[in-house]
Order: sequence, then C-alpha cells, then structure tokens
Amino acid sequence: MSEQKTLIVPAGRGLAMRLAEGETVSVVNVSGTQVVDTWAFCAENLDHVMSMEHSRVENGRLSAGVGGHYLTDRREPIIEVVEDTSPGIHDTIMAACDARRYELLGCRGHHRSCADNLREAMEAIGLPLSGKVPQPLNLFMNIPVGADGSLTQGAPLGEPGDRVTLKALRNCVVAFSACPQDITPINGHSPTDVEVVLGRMRTAL
Amino acid sequence: MSEQKTLIVPAGRGLAMRLAEGETVSVVNVSGTQVVDTWAFCAENLDHVMSMEHSRVENGRLSAGVGGHYLTDRREPIIEVVEDTSPGIHDTIMAACDARRYELLGCRGHHRSCADNLREAMEAIGLPLSGKVPQPLNLFMNIPVGADGSLTQGAPLGEPGDRVTLKALRNCVVAFSACPQDITPINGHSPTDVEVVLGRMRTAL
Repeated sequence: MSEQKTLIVPAGRGLAMRLAEGETVSVVNVSGTQVVDTWAFCAENLDHVMSMEHSRVENGRLSAGVGGHYLTDRREPIIEVVEDTSPGIHDTIMAACDARRYELLGCRGHHRSCADNLREAMEAIGLPLSGKVPQPLNLFMNIPVGADGSLTQGAPLGEPGDRVTLKALRNCVVAFSACPQDITPINGHSPTDVEVVLGRMRTAL
Repeated sequence: MSEQKTLIVPAGRGLAMRLAEGETVSVVNVSGTQVVDTWAFCAENLDHVMSMEHSRVENGRLSAGVGGHYLTDRREPIIEVVEDTSPGIHDTIMAACDARRYELLGCRGHHRSCADNLREAMEAIGLPLSGKVPQPLNLFMNIPVGADGSLTQGAPLGEPGDRVTLKALRNCVVAFSACPQDITPINGHSPTDVEVVLGRMRTAL
C-alpha cells in the first residue's frame, strides 16, 4: 500500500524534503522544457552527499539510466532511478547557477539561482547547508558533448509530462530547484513550474 | 629573467607547492602514459579551490586549451594553460581515486590513491587539507565520452616528454598526484614518475 502527495515547485524556486529508505519521488517536467537541479544528502550526515563525479566513475556513464544508482562521495549508493519517461538526457557536468554566474552573463541586480534555491530550501526545512553546493544532477538538462570536448547549452528534448522517479536507497534529504536560468536556452528561455510527486510506501513503514 | 627547478614526483606519489601569481609549473609526462591529477587552491583561503564544474560552464568545454583558464568555485580565474605539447586530451569528469575505489575494484589491503596523495602532499608543506578532495584536473587522462554518455577508461594517447605548462593567475597552492591506478588501463597499467618543472619568474618578484 502506498500514498502519493503532489507538490509544486514554482518556476525559479526550490524545495527540499526528507525521504526514508524505499520512498520515491517523481519529478514531473510539466512544460517539458524545464531543467530541475537535484541534490541528495545523507540524513544522518548532510556533509555526506550524492556525488556526480563518483557516480560517473562507478557507472561508466555521464548519468545513470533506469535501474542505475547514484553514489555518494564515499561511493555508497544513495539514489536509484526507477522510472524515466523522458528521452533520458540529463546533465551531471555543469555547476549549479549562482549569483556570480548571472553577473558574468551581464545581469544587473539580483537574479534567482539554483545555488540560492538549494540553500533556501534546506533552511526552510530546518537543515541549513553548511558546506558547498554540490555538483547537481541536472534532470532534463541537454548539454551535448562534442567530439572535441565542446559543450553546448541546448534546450530540453522531452515532452510535457515527462517524469523521472528516484528511489531513496537510504534515509536522505533531497532537494530540487526549478532552474531560473532565462538567459541561455537550457529552459527554453522560459522557466516553468515543476511537479514533485512524493511516494510514501506505507507498507515499508 | 627566470630560473627553473626540476622536481620528480615518484610513481604513485604526490607533491604540493606554493606558486606566486605569474609563476609557472610544467608537468612533464616522462613515460607518455602517466595521468597526473592536479589541484589548485587559493593561497589566502584553501577552501576556495579550482573547480572543474565551474570551469566547464564558463569555458563551454570539458577542459581548457592553450590560452584557456580554469576558474575557482567562485568563478574566478586561478590557472591559465600556457603550453600543451600533448594531444590535449585531459579529463575533468572522473573523481580522484581513493581507498574505497580500490576496494570496489577488488583490491585487498592498502592501495595508494590520488586522494591520499593530495592529503599527504598538502600536509608535507604544512597546509593540511581540511575540506573534501575537489574534482581534479586529470592531465593526460583519456576518457572518451560516447554519444550515448558512456565513459571509457582509455590509456593516454601522447608521447614520452609531453608537457603541459600552467601559470598561476593568483597566489595559490598547486598539488599533483602521479596516479597509482594499476588496475584500469588509464596509466597504461604501469604508473611511472612525473617531472614537475617550476618556473620562477624572477623579474616578477
């Protein structure tokens, strides 16, 4: 038996939540064009984090497919990909946008960012982040890698309603940012809301 | 006027040193088959580090070419590539090897690692690393990225004597590890010594 709870991450904002081992969370790309920066932290030690660089080594892939795992920076499994209805194009190599990124892009004044969204979201659940912003799993982000090592900022290639479902392989805290980037084309130039569907496995509790 | 000093990083070991702004360091791949994990830390704040994930975004490339810069995790320039006589194939996406990596590869007992080499090398110059091991710039490391996102552990493609020269764009500490990996083919299965040539620019002092 299980129950589901749907939450909205408003365009350009963040959301964090605890997940118990075995629980799932689906990230629904309502518009089809929205990148969602995603992080996971071990519940008992927020300094022990999901790590793209360690996951890439152990997986032999830039991102994990369905059935694949993301590992922590101690190379321990933390997240399993249990569903992906999108084309499966996700980024693990581009840093979260931050205030400085928008300055370098020529923005004047404040611009929301995924780094700030993560910090705000963690604070909102009483778990302020003391360390650095880890390299995120950038769901739906389309960064083609050229044979010459060039990186292109592409728009997402999926459809409205595409979803990725992640399962917690240990008690953890997950955080999402509906990326506010509106200067490069990575969100189709127009950041949108995202749905997050939390699957509580009551039988497992 | 300048002077040069040549140091040897023994196979499987590490070395760290201070570099003043404008000074250079050349990493010479004596065997042609040796990967050299490379880090840089701002001298006045070792927690402010060279960041591959931020460099990739700003450069639009996996690694920087000659004339290109590596940035810190605050997106500030720290290292310029001023010379590269190798084929220019360097990795920025694979985590440094560590004790756990060798356990997962089936090693029994202790195996030297780049993560341990970094910590030892920093301690040896009185600057112990308090934070995490950053994603290194893996000089000469050949990790072909497939169109499907697959990552192959290849052997270096250069020649004996290939060198990469890096210039400090600010006062910093640089560290190198002659990668001790002898299970995967990334060092041609046989880790070797590396030469590090420090270029002190006396006119700049």
